[in-house]
Amino acid sequence: MKKIEGLIAASFAAYKDNGEINLDIIPEIVENLIADGLAGVFICGTNGEGPNLTIEERMAIAEAYVKAVNKRIIVMVHVGHSSIYEAKKLAAHAQGLGVDAISSVSAFYFKPSSVKALVISMAEIASAAPETPFYYYNIPHLTGISMDMLEFLNLAEELIPSFRGVKYTASTLHEYEACLNHKDGKFDILFGFDEMLLPALAVGAKGAVGSTYTFAAPLYNRIIECFQNNQLKEARDLQMMSIKMVQSLVKFAPIPAQRAIVGFKGINLGPCRLPLLELKASDKELLIEELEKKEFFSTVKDCIKNHSF
Amino acid sequence: MKKIEGLIAASFAAYKDNGEINLDIIPEIVENLIADGLAGVFICGTNGEGPNLTIEERMAIAEAYVKAVNKRIIVMVHVGHSSIYEAKKLAAHAQGLGVDAISSVSAFYFKPSSVKALVISMAEIASAAPETPFYYYNIPHLTGISMDMLEFLNLAEELIPSFRGVKYTASTLHEYEACLNHKDGKFDILFGFDEMLLPALAVGAKGAVGSTYTFAAPLYNRIIECFQNNQLKEARDLQMMSIKMVQSLVKFAPIPAQRAIVGFKGINLGPCRLPLLELKASDKELLIEELEKKEFFSTVKDCIKNHSF
Amino acid sequence: MKKIEGLIAASFAAYKDNGEINLDIIPEIVENLIADGLAGVFICGTNGEGPNLTIEERMAIAEAYVKAVNKRIIVMVHVGHSSIYEAKKLAAHAQGLGVDAISSVSAFYFKPSSVKALVISMAEIASAAPETPFYYYNIPHLTGISMDMLEFLNLAEELIPSFRGVKYTASTLHEYEACLNHKDGKFDILFGFDEMLLPALAVGAKGAVGSTYTFAAPLYNRIIECFQNNQLKEARDLQMMSIKMVQSLVKFAPIPAQRAIVGFKGINLGPCRLPLLELKASDKELLIEELEKKEFFSTVKDCIKNHSF
Amino acid sequence: MKKIEGLIAASFAAYKDNGEINLDIIPEIVENLIADGLAGVFICGTNGEGPNLTIEERMAIAEAYVKAVNKRIIVMVHVGHSSIYEAKKLAAHAQGLGVDAISSVSAFYFKPSSVKALVISMAEIASAAPETPFYYYNIPHLTGISMDMLEFLNLAEELIPSFRGVKYTASTLHEYEACLNHKDGKFDILFGFDEMLLPALAVGAKGAVGSTYTFAAPLYNRIIECFQNNQLKEARDLQMMSIKMVQSLVKFAPIPAQRAIVGFKGINLGPCRLPLLELKASDKELLIEELEKKEFFSTVKDCIKNHSF
Repeated sequence: MKKIEGLIAASFAAYKDNGEINLDIIPEIVENLIADGLAGVFICGTNGEGPNLTIEERMAIAEAYVKAVNKRIIVMVHVGHSSIYEAKKLAAHAQGLGVDAISSVSAFYFKPSSVKALVISMAEIASAAPETPFYYYNIPHLTGISMDMLEFLNLAEELIPSFRGVKYTASTLHEYEACLNHKDGKFDILFGFDEMLLPALAVGAKGAVGSTYTFAAPLYNRIIECFQNNQLKEARDLQMMSIKMVQSLVKFAPIPAQRAIVGFKGINLGPCRLPLLELKASDKELLIEELEKKEFFSTVKDCIKNHSF
Repeated sequence: MKKIEGLIAASFAAYKDNGEINLDIIPEIVENLIADGLAGVFICGTNGEGPNLTIEERMAIAEAYVKAVNKRIIVMVHVGHSSIYEAKKLAAHAQGLGVDAISSVSAFYFKPSSVKALVISMAEIASAAPETPFYYYNIPHLTGISMDMLEFLNLAEELIPSFRGVKYTASTLHEYEACLNHKDGKFDILFGFDEMLLPALAVGAKGAVGSTYTFAAPLYNRIIECFQNNQLKEARDLQMMSIKMVQSLVKFAPIPAQRAIVGFKGINLGPCRLPLLELKASDKELLIEELEKKEFFSTVKDCIKNHSF
Repeated sequence: MKKIEGLIAASFAAYKDNGEINLDIIPEIVENLIADGLAGVFICGTNGEGPNLTIEERMAIAEAYVKAVNKRIIVMVHVGHSSIYEAKKLAAHAQGLGVDAISSVSAFYFKPSSVKALVISMAEIASAAPETPFYYYNIPHLTGISMDMLEFLNLAEELIPSFRGVKYTASTLHEYEACLNHKDGKFDILFGFDEMLLPALAVGAKGAVGSTYTFAAPLYNRIIECFQNNQLKEARDLQMMSIKMVQSLVKFAPIPAQRAIVGFKGINLGPCRLPLLELKASDKELLIEELEKKEFFSTVKDCIKNHSF
Repeated sequence: MKKIEGLIAASFAAYKDNGEINLDIIPEIVENLIADGLAGVFICGTNGEGPNLTIEERMAIAEAYVKAVNKRIIVMVHVGHSSIYEAKKLAAHAQGLGVDAISSVSAFYFKPSSVKALVISMAEIASAAPETPFYYYNIPHLTGISMDMLEFLNLAEELIPSFRGVKYTASTLHEYEACLNHKDGKFDILFGFDEMLLPALAVGAKGAVGSTYTFAAPLYNRIIECFQNNQLKEARDLQMMSIKMVQSLVKFAPIPAQRAIVGFKGINLGPCRLPLLELKASDKELLIEELEKKEFFSTVKDCIKNHSF
């Protein structure tokens, strides 16, 4: 597998009204992502609520996505878990499905005490899927684990045979740029902050994983296109639209708010699972109104028209 | 069940050399705890590495403890998990075993956004074991979730029918004292910082859960006895010994260091499980030497002799 | 100077209506403190808003307190400042006034990078008042500087000739107890969390510095008395009253709320100084009502009656 | 004053061997900055150690810079202080000198409890220099004060007549971009993370303030030039050089390490002032060797040659 280019959607979990996972809707989700120009899908991650799901649910979801995607776009499966033993089960299962890559956050209850402890832990997980490219999922604000990523790359190269790169979800673009350029760009460093895609492109980002790509990929694909065509003014304007949209998400609660947007766009993801709380119906309406007032939805639509491919 | 009095040992996970859990050693662990004067055992918690274990392992360990204890002391089972669905499985299983109580930390990947979200989450877990007393396990420095515990008590009383109290692992004794006295002492608030047992007793603690009670219960039982007999000088001296011992643990890495002490005392808990790293053999020696120099082991032995019961 | 015993009031800054400092009211403040049974006064600290004042204001306040106290109780002057040069001026000035002790927080804009950098910095300040006992003021939650206090004691003993002890404002009573017992109790470790006075007494506290001693000293003196007489039930009840009062302070904003209480008790401290914001008049009323409902004021009064000295 | 374009050097404090400030060297510093192509100088800020200096020292330094610069480049004076009263003195003094702008961090001992408290505090400081443009200096990792900057802009516009913009020292480029675009770009938002200059340019940065511009301005001016000429490859390579240099600074301690570099380049800034500790001589050598090995100095020199102006 060469380096990933383009946008990977961090897709959301879908539930039935009774709270059980909804596998039936996954084909529809996938077709939408493909139609929207996504390069791939990242499943059971943060936005996919991996840590909220049971092992069996995560495996069933992975199976459904692999089948629905049918090799048309990249499938990355997040296998991170507080228990490295459970993570290994998920990794082995994902490899059995023939996914394109697996990814894992650090164990997040007990925090690794050093970069070495972190890399050894990731190596243990990766060892259960030795034929499948492995990406470390770095997301310090959620896990509380903030390690030196260059030190990580050096040690991971040595100790994880299947190591491919990092899903980098942090605003520290100087470290991100350093990772991109480490050993002449040997590793694949995917960027994870949707609202900072444009500046990440400026320092060399090629691939990105994010939740808002699930419902606004045309906006971001147009940012990439404008950046490549040196249409910086339009790229900035569209990035500002993304920022304004994310401001609304943060105001209402990021994951529940995004689930409401996906629902508004026609895909019913069902209720939220605890500890996440569903937005009240009135808040959902306020959110959509706010986004309409910001001309978010119409801008995304315009991006589809303006897109050259 | 009335309020818990005395010491509950937060027992450690035991592994075989190949890294699998060691169930065979549990009867020996239990006999030691009973001989040492423990009032109960808390299993699969932080020191028991619950979040490092698989669901199946946690269930097997709970079964082995219940069988080995055979109702001679209290058995509390920690069922906390990043997934509330998995936690519910553990809760239902524990109730099936007839344990005395269950306890749970907050979901710790996604953090509840409010006391209400936390209580609703705990209620959901408790609902899977409605006949079993439920204790919330408050440990902010590990979970990153620091909520107002008085607000929690008020809401938990309302929303969790089986709610019994809190395992309180924080140094904020003013809040701890407030919880103890809330609604005329209606709830059972177990203290969780071994190195602060004496000051906790001063504000009214009756029960305590801790990892060092696993291997030094006589020391702490003597602190309780001295405190009750108004022998404050001796109580302070013994608490200082606990503090000095904990300083050594922190210096070497708390859980691996304690596992080494248990091993030194004759129970082989096996290797550490990632992301925890085993102490080097030379560090184990240094640790034991340091504790011997501090006269830790001999002091614990003297406490057995001096104990009046 | 031997070790400090009893309560030291961390007195509040007093301002005129135009925002300038009010020196005229200081004699009245001092007489009240002496009448209330305080062992001393700590000025220009956190509650005294030292870091909000100019150097000239701090010097003028120190002079006024020294004069008003006239050696009847202990006077400690806080000289901490973001600039060690300014702190040295304050230290030299305080020594010139013949104060009983000086104290300093760490420089708090640039954070010392190690215990050694911290101790060297404190030594530099203390060197400007070589004849005056020096106390390090440890208050991690405000300064963001959380160092190992035992390491600090060892190095401070070596590098600060006038070093006497620590004003310890943190809830970590195990470290506090370790400091009290360090080198057979060589150092004077004053406790700084009023709402945890009772548990601090249990581990050996003799002296304490706090803001609520300014207006509720009889309550705390009675806690000390009860503790010494082994009347633990009453000590706990009174400590709970302190905790409930502090809960109200926190709800409304600690320093402005306490200033309102002092005003209610008859001493007009004037408006708040930025960045602190004055409570609204309606909030002041709510605060007083809440404290009256909790029977706070009447309990303090009863403590005066019950006090044996 | 229109918006600031180009690089502002956050100049370092200069001391004599006895630790007193060295004013004599300021003309030499200024000539170097002008020769290096700086658009201005920011004095007594973080790198200028404002909070480490006395009020009198800060005033003397401001005077020396204003005289040495003699209106050839922009002079911004940082007046932030833990005491707003002291900050007002500095602000009034700076206005008396005719500086181009003043800037202030939030009070940093007592933290403002809300955006409103912060803005009112800044308004109070700005009111002492009503004719001088005011920039809020946002640097959350040092002050611990992390407020919503858009909310700040709205309120500052209303309450601070001389409000001009923000010196934004944080990696959150989405918020930075939102500030740049707020009210059609009404405010001047200077970027403060040198190692992220290129991505900041991508989102629209025009002006930047930073410490490494003091000794490596040609590198950054060339980044700006390349970015404007769409020579992205070279811009990234040069930004990577900046990142590698900053990695060395962080390894040795940022401010002392930078002072050593300035010394190596021929300007003797004298010893460090506490709580900052001077690098050991051997560490200074290691640092310079490391930077030479990274070809940092030669790259900066090449940038001078390649520069088109």
